[in-house]
Amino acid sequence: MPSNRCIVLKERPRGIPEPHHFELVSQVLPRLSAGEMIVETLYLSIDAALRGWLNDEPNYSPPVGVGEVVRSLAVGRVVESRTAEFVPGDLVYGWFGWQTHCKSTVDRVLRRVDPEQAPVSAAAGVLGINGLTAWLALHEIGTPRRGETIVVSTAAGAVGSIVGQLAGHAGCRTVGLTGSREKVKLCVERFGYEAAVNYRACGSLDEAVTEHCPGGVDVFFDNAGGYVADVIVRRMNPFGRIIQCGTLATASWHPVVPQGPRIEREILARRLRVQGFVIFDHRQRFDEVAATLARLIRSGDLTYVEHIYKGLETAPQALADLYAGRNEGKVLVRIDRESG
Amino acid sequence: MPSNRCIVLKERPRGIPEPHHFELVSQVLPRLSAGEMIVETLYLSIDAALRGWLNDEPNYSPPVGVGEVVRSLAVGRVVESRTAEFVPGDLVYGWFGWQTHCKSTVDRVLRRVDPEQAPVSAAAGVLGINGLTAWLALHEIGTPRRGETIVVSTAAGAVGSIVGQLAGHAGCRTVGLTGSREKVKLCVERFGYEAAVNYRACGSLDEAVTEHCPGGVDVFFDNAGGYVADVIVRRMNPFGRIIQCGTLATASWHPVVPQGPRIEREILARRLRVQGFVIFDHRQRFDEVAATLARLIRSGDLTYVEHIYKGLETAPQALADLYAGRNEGKVLVRIDRESG
Repeated sequence: MPSNRCIVLKERPRGIPEPHHFELVSQVLPRLSAGEMIVETLYLSIDAALRGWLNDEPNYSPPVGVGEVVRSLAVGRVVESRTAEFVPGDLVYGWFGWQTHCKSTVDRVLRRVDPEQAPVSAAAGVLGINGLTAWLALHEIGTPRRGETIVVSTAAGAVGSIVGQLAGHAGCRTVGLTGSREKVKLCVERFGYEAAVNYRACGSLDEAVTEHCPGGVDVFFDNAGGYVADVIVRRMNPFGRIIQCGTLATASWHPVVPQGPRIEREILARRLRVQGFVIFDHRQRFDEVAATLARLIRSGDLTYVEHIYKGLETAPQALADLYAGRNEGKVLVRIDRESG
Repeated sequence: MPSNRCIVLKERPRGIPEPHHFELVSQVLPRLSAGEMIVETLYLSIDAALRGWLNDEPNYSPPVGVGEVVRSLAVGRVVESRTAEFVPGDLVYGWFGWQTHCKSTVDRVLRRVDPEQAPVSAAAGVLGINGLTAWLALHEIGTPRRGETIVVSTAAGAVGSIVGQLAGHAGCRTVGLTGSREKVKLCVERFGYEAAVNYRACGSLDEAVTEHCPGGVDVFFDNAGGYVADVIVRRMNPFGRIIQCGTLATASWHPVVPQGPRIEREILARRLRVQGFVIFDHRQRFDEVAATLARLIRSGDLTYVEHIYKGLETAPQALADLYAGRNEGKVLVRIDRESG
């Protein structure tokens, strides 16, 4: 039985987690009981949602406890199994945490990974929650129609980079908002956006959006909230849809809720529909949608960029870089079997 | 041809209109062309939405011009007609304005009024936009289910007083928010609310809502926005629905948008659906829904309260009283034929 190296929560963050909130420790893996298996992790998925899972604030799941392994999705390989469902060698995507090995039960697995669909790492990103979010939130809430204009925040991120392409396939004019010149380039050259705006250096964001969305905005796929959202909501067309998929722009919601311009009037007068999206409500559709996305990848109609860190110990820094917007595309940590 | 007395916009308000913004004038009614008719008004509908029609701010319809007759729904009687659709004596509900007589076209009529359904005044309230809003917004956006809890703001108003009863019929626990002890009483004794809270004198509104909604809030029918909404959104259950039907709590949106605590996180983590509702998008359903509401009135399952002012000249004060919350139920101005 190999020993397990893992990263635990050392101190509960308030707001954005930083490297000093984490600690690397070693554990002996406990013996398996019936219904359990050992998964060795291959790629950890680094997600902005982690903030919500670590802070002790109301959220859709209880927070990780201090001293517990950091909650994380990952792609891994079953190395030992006392389950009826999985045998050693099976590839799986699920809640395996920031660790090299996970004693898991079947209910922690979100999807069985099919290496024929795409490279294994893709199962944690474009075929994992990010691509699934892009597809399901766009189509179920955004209901894009040919000729409509969609604006996407964090457009070069793991979700936004897929949304732009899918909305383009749906016949929409796609405008991405992102935070650097390099990412603007990536949005337009790789992710199929017709236009992209560096909201940090565009002068008036309102003017930039008006220029790029001359017919107004029909769908706003919002991963950020905050100031950028304040501008876009006031450029929405009647009956526009806003997908609230993330709140990356706001560092902390607790104990003082940040203030912003009220939007009740915008929602009413423009008859907007604003809806929150959490991917884990849609588990029963994961396999079907992943198969669709995999087909698009194979046909060359969907591209993705991975930003891969090496070694378990890099996970806290990978997360910090994600919050600082230093990533392009999906952030992953590859678990190196030699170094752990 | 009788002369027409009308109230015109004298000065454009910023925010809540007040009596000094209006002026009573007399006009000679112009000669009818083909396709036109004269409607003598019987009841003017006094609606909070008027603020949005008078202010020069983005809205779902262009603002009334200075010097123009104040836009208003009313119930009236056709007295002269050069249309194919209406003959003298027909009762109609539509955009006839704050005036004793309106030279109208057919497209200004929202509904033909059937005096067999209910007293004629009801066509401007419970069978007019208020009751239609209550029904359509509740069922189309709120989608209430048996056993759910619904909170309604301005619960004793023209819309809220109907919503409480309809939600009760749908099997919901109904909690009304209103602004006086008298209106709390009215909510519980007349409008079928299981509980009502005077938000102006309940100590902590959050505690009052928690007490009356022990299982959280599933549907929030919001006619007010502002501070009350800030509290309720943080008591919503996962997958809750918020109907943004009015913004009465905010006096002015222009030129400075008022600030409030941000709600992106609430919408996301609770997977809320927040949707704006404007009744005029649903014109094709008016007759069908009004017939349903009329059946409920006749069977004793739907009650309504009218607050009737007498004489055209009382309209500005009736409106001021509405914004001050001095009304109970639907505010109407009865046009007295003798005094104009």
